[in-house]
Amino acid sequence: MKVTVVGIGLIGGSIALALKESGFAETVIGVDNKSEHIIKALELKLVDKVLLLPDAIKQSDIVILATPVDSLLTLLPQVLDQVDNQIVIEVGSTKKLVVASVKNHPKRKNYVATHPMAGTEYSGPEAAIRGLFAGKCSVFCDVEDSDPTAVETIKRLYEEGMNMRIVYLDSVSHDVHTAYISHISHICSFALAQTVLDKEKEEARIFELASGGFDSTVRLAKSSPDTWIPIFRQNRENIIDVLDEYINTLLTFKGLMLSGSYDTFHKKLEHANDIRRILK
Amino acid sequence: MKVTVVGIGLIGGSIALALKESGFAETVIGVDNKSEHIIKALELKLVDKVLLLPDAIKQSDIVILATPVDSLLTLLPQVLDQVDNQIVIEVGSTKKLVVASVKNHPKRKNYVATHPMAGTEYSGPEAAIRGLFAGKCSVFCDVEDSDPTAVETIKRLYEEGMNMRIVYLDSVSHDVHTAYISHISHICSFALAQTVLDKEKEEARIFELASGGFDSTVRLAKSSPDTWIPIFRQNRENIIDVLDEYINTLLTFKGLMLSGSYDTFHKKLEHANDIRRILK
Repeated sequence: MKVTVVGIGLIGGSIALALKESGFAETVIGVDNKSEHIIKALELKLVDKVLLLPDAIKQSDIVILATPVDSLLTLLPQVLDQVDNQIVIEVGSTKKLVVASVKNHPKRKNYVATHPMAGTEYSGPEAAIRGLFAGKCSVFCDVEDSDPTAVETIKRLYEEGMNMRIVYLDSVSHDVHTAYISHISHICSFALAQTVLDKEKEEARIFELASGGFDSTVRLAKSSPDTWIPIFRQNRENIIDVLDEYINTLLTFKGLMLSGSYDTFHKKLEHANDIRRILK
Repeated sequence: MKVTVVGIGLIGGSIALALKESGFAETVIGVDNKSEHIIKALELKLVDKVLLLPDAIKQSDIVILATPVDSLLTLLPQVLDQVDNQIVIEVGSTKKLVVASVKNHPKRKNYVATHPMAGTEYSGPEAAIRGLFAGKCSVFCDVEDSDPTAVETIKRLYEEGMNMRIVYLDSVSHDVHTAYISHISHICSFALAQTVLDKEKEEARIFELASGGFDSTVRLAKSSPDTWIPIFRQNRENIIDVLDEYINTLLTFKGLMLSGSYDTFHKKLEHANDIRRILK
């Protein structure tokens, strides 16, 4: 297969590495509007060659869009305008608006909406890593709107090319669930980092005391605002719902401390401990 | 040196391992009021022998109290009542009330208040690990109230026995800073776990989608309520201050989403990115 990856950052670069390594892609073509990404992607051998988008599409069997989700709203229709039999997928963290952007496109069936659920707090081609996706899940959305043969090919891309499992969800449900299991974690972490940075002026001195627990909860605050602001924007309603519930939980905890109801607070934390069943 | 560790869980057990391995302690005596901890500690060779507290104190040069911080308020004075020349330290995550519990004790100078800043989300003797403390900081509080020779010995215990660096803080400042760099992280994580568990009824299906980011922010929610409720209780005022600021930050983020002020939101996240300077 000849595969084009548009946007050679953490996600696009890691996909390129996986598809080459597994042999699913015989050639990976890179497209990126940042020249420094192009140069770095070639230097790191993430891609075999780089081309401008129209040429890359012509030479490919599959085009993978791995750009921030705001740009997908214009890029995806533009790419579909240029395809013949090529399959187009995007790997954005939101789905409802992205899918809606090509709802009535004559080439809609060439497009498969996917979300490989993996990442790190780093960004850019240097952040691409081998094995980022292995053993994780990729969500396929609204597959009934895609050509079944295209879906089958993309299933192989994820299963054989990237060692992932496939989960099917409609795009609306996808956005609800990712608000809970991904987007809110980033909001919490950004907010915690900002709170602590604002307060602790004697940084160097105090932060050397911080250990693993602190690192763990604020690590996602290193993530790129260019990636995350568009996600927060597109999934605003779901994220605000979760955020409201999260703030309510925090206010409940505060109330229990203020009223000295530590037995009830203890029971709440025991309930939170149920997360042990889920996290390995 | 002969060292007694009272409370052979994650922290006490890991201290015992470090002090034996470094050769600082020739003998480590274990004390624990849970028989299953005693049995496990012997089985895992965390301690050389187990004794009841009064006998352990008599046979020791140093007594380390590694129990939950609520029990320290009665245990620390009781232990000081029984010492002759032995040095007593505790390793609790709060300091103000613990130090106050022995303010006027005739043996106050035998006691050094310390907080080795390291841990994991696991608890009990099975959670004890080698190298937990290596390279991290231990806070010494109110050292002017301790015998200088005792402070010097405990400095060696941490530096040579556990490969830690020493930071000096008064007990009041300690509790303010740990609220920011440790306690609030646990509150956030417990609250996030509870929010998500309450909402996601189709757990098995949805949580398999969760990846590293989610794990990272909710991992601390696996922590023991028996350890953390007493910490939240003793450091209530500082934690509520931080919690108020954190909730305000979350409400600011929400307001920026509601008003569509994504440029300002972007700038806030860039500021949160400053945490990159601090986290390696």
